[in-house]
Amino acid sequence: MTQNRPFEQTEYDTRLAATRKRMAAAGLDLLVITDPANMNYISGYDGWSFYTPQCLVVALDGGQPIWIGRGIDAGGARVTTFLDADNIVPYSDDYVQAEGRHPMDYTAEVLVARGLGRGVIGLEMDSYYFSPMAYEALKAGLPEGTFKDSGQLVNWVRSIKSSAEIEMMRKAAQLVEIAMRAGIDAIEPGVRQCDAVATIYQAQIAGHPDFGGDYTSLVPMLPTGVGTSTPHLTWSDDVFVSGEATILEIAGAHRHYHCPMSRTVFLGTPPTKLTDTAKVVVEGLSAALDFAKPGVTCGEVEAVWRTTVAKYGLVKDSRIGYSTGLNYPPDWGEHTMSLRPGDDSVVQVDMTFHMIPGIWKDDWGIEISECFHVTEQGARPFCAFPRELTVKT
Amino acid sequence: MTQNRPFEQTEYDTRLAATRKRMAAAGLDLLVITDPANMNYISGYDGWSFYTPQCLVVALDGGQPIWIGRGIDAGGARVTTFLDADNIVPYSDDYVQAEGRHPMDYTAEVLVARGLGRGVIGLEMDSYYFSPMAYEALKAGLPEGTFKDSGQLVNWVRSIKSSAEIEMMRKAAQLVEIAMRAGIDAIEPGVRQCDAVATIYQAQIAGHPDFGGDYTSLVPMLPTGVGTSTPHLTWSDDVFVSGEATILEIAGAHRHYHCPMSRTVFLGTPPTKLTDTAKVVVEGLSAALDFAKPGVTCGEVEAVWRTTVAKYGLVKDSRIGYSTGLNYPPDWGEHTMSLRPGDDSVVQVDMTFHMIPGIWKDDWGIEISECFHVTEQGARPFCAFPRELTVKT
Repeated sequence: MTQNRPFEQTEYDTRLAATRKRMAAAGLDLLVITDPANMNYISGYDGWSFYTPQCLVVALDGGQPIWIGRGIDAGGARVTTFLDADNIVPYSDDYVQAEGRHPMDYTAEVLVARGLGRGVIGLEMDSYYFSPMAYEALKAGLPEGTFKDSGQLVNWVRSIKSSAEIEMMRKAAQLVEIAMRAGIDAIEPGVRQCDAVATIYQAQIAGHPDFGGDYTSLVPMLPTGVGTSTPHLTWSDDVFVSGEATILEIAGAHRHYHCPMSRTVFLGTPPTKLTDTAKVVVEGLSAALDFAKPGVTCGEVEAVWRTTVAKYGLVKDSRIGYSTGLNYPPDWGEHTMSLRPGDDSVVQVDMTFHMIPGIWKDDWGIEISECFHVTEQGARPFCAFPRELTVKT
Repeated sequence: MTQNRPFEQTEYDTRLAATRKRMAAAGLDLLVITDPANMNYISGYDGWSFYTPQCLVVALDGGQPIWIGRGIDAGGARVTTFLDADNIVPYSDDYVQAEGRHPMDYTAEVLVARGLGRGVIGLEMDSYYFSPMAYEALKAGLPEGTFKDSGQLVNWVRSIKSSAEIEMMRKAAQLVEIAMRAGIDAIEPGVRQCDAVATIYQAQIAGHPDFGGDYTSLVPMLPTGVGTSTPHLTWSDDVFVSGEATILEIAGAHRHYHCPMSRTVFLGTPPTKLTDTAKVVVEGLSAALDFAKPGVTCGEVEAVWRTTVAKYGLVKDSRIGYSTGLNYPPDWGEHTMSLRPGDDSVVQVDMTFHMIPGIWKDDWGIEISECFHVTEQGARPFCAFPRELTVKT
């Protein structure tokens, strides 16, 4: 009664072993994983159930991880994970969004009953689906535990992809190329933004004849006109207008592995500042891609971009990229490395990044990005899509 | 340089006043709102920026709310809110997903500088985008503040809809009817699940000739076959198979207002247990809808369902519904009222609920739901869609 998991069991075993190695180094006896991507990565668990508290518990000294979640989702854990029935622990529905009781009260009881409530317990203190109330409940319920922020422990394991994961991202790359082409084709004066986005969604999910698409961690971003001054606006019912730019930031996703891409479309004859800036962005992006290789740091990659575009007077004060891959909403970034000054993380073979040096000015902006795979030979973009401002006259 | 906000300014004023009234009753001098739906409700702020910390701060003693968020999203606040420039406060990008510094460090500095770091400060302790680390940073940065869980304070204001909000939900209802019809039509033996979901997305977003659709807070749920034993599985590349059921739980959304709906489709001749259970579910759902009216409690509504289906030996141990309306991912529920035993919240005019008595057994399940508006005359379903098991032979 299991769905096909996307990876062989040996791959899950390797991930768990690497996680335990990092746990030992961090002095953790137990790790309570609440990030849905990390839960999926370790156990295969997959479902849109992260809107109620759930976790995957890994003990340093062995045994299968333990899934603890809402009763109605235990079936999902049976269907999607390799865990034995004993290690799928449901809480009753009266814990859900209730005053005065929290699912993490019960989680603590389960851990105590299994002798896991002691020692140093790692918590993902800055993950999306772990609230301060959940934290307080765990602390109160595990008086013999000592708590420690585990930071991005599993995310760092995720930062180096296996060849099977790279294969997933290659499929995602094919999907984003299909969807970006469909989106660019759909954007015309007089067309409603919602209709163009519907076309993008259709392409993202229907995907390729040989494989379909998954939901992406961000919905399509579609700032247009003056909205291009900021990256995270979505669509409306308004129509596209000649003489305006539209930024598309979308991804393809397959089995929750992402390949993001941004492009900018102009309807009509673009102003010189936009065409000039596009050339500078492409030159900076290409220079940084050429430079990125095993052994350099994330900060050094950003410096190549910065030096290149500074020649033309362009300054950008936000990061130009981040590691990406497996994820769930609301972010396809992995929260480990950023391509920005001061990030001394060393670029390594089989890391994957989204380099997106977005430019957002007072009332206009531009985005042209590439998602890339770090190989022995350097950065290899996943996509081969024209790296330019798209002008539709 | 503003987008059209969906509501008149007077409506935002009313919402803010109602929030302050609840703040006074709760003894709060300041409220730090981190729930994106609550931020949107009070200020109009709209953007997929909740993957980095952001908040809207409301002081009890007057003045505009203050938006504090990532620098690159300040443009989005300018475009979508009514806030003056002084009340849109960006943090620099080196706070983003960085070790050793947190956006809430800066948020605390802003509050202190504005004389707002004292008194009783309400925090949404169980909201999705407010992490334990954010909480610790605020506490450390505001040593003169006393912290209190504000619970679902703004969510409760949201629980009673204005006529303009009901109008949004009526549009969402038209969208979900279109999308459900498209989904049911698309599900056929041999069709890939991803292709059916692509059709649903297309219909949800392209929407209606007069208005488009927004992204919904949950993606389409599509458990099929044995997966119908659990509600929160999404689609795969597999094809639909004759002799299997598929559950569709989707919504329509317009300006982030939702109307959810679930239906179950069977390809071929369904087993008797499914057709029998469908009849019982519809009878229980209809009885509870007939009973729901101003003045009864949420628990009493559930009891009508429970008593009705108990006659046939059907038992369900999870809640049968919840308040819904304005929301952002990952949940379209409002986290206030649940239709379940012990919830003594009184049903009132202009509340809106999704009644979804899902049945999930060991290897099968069924969902048939209705979203409804509480009027003086009782519960009025938003949709008129056949309330039955859909059989496609």
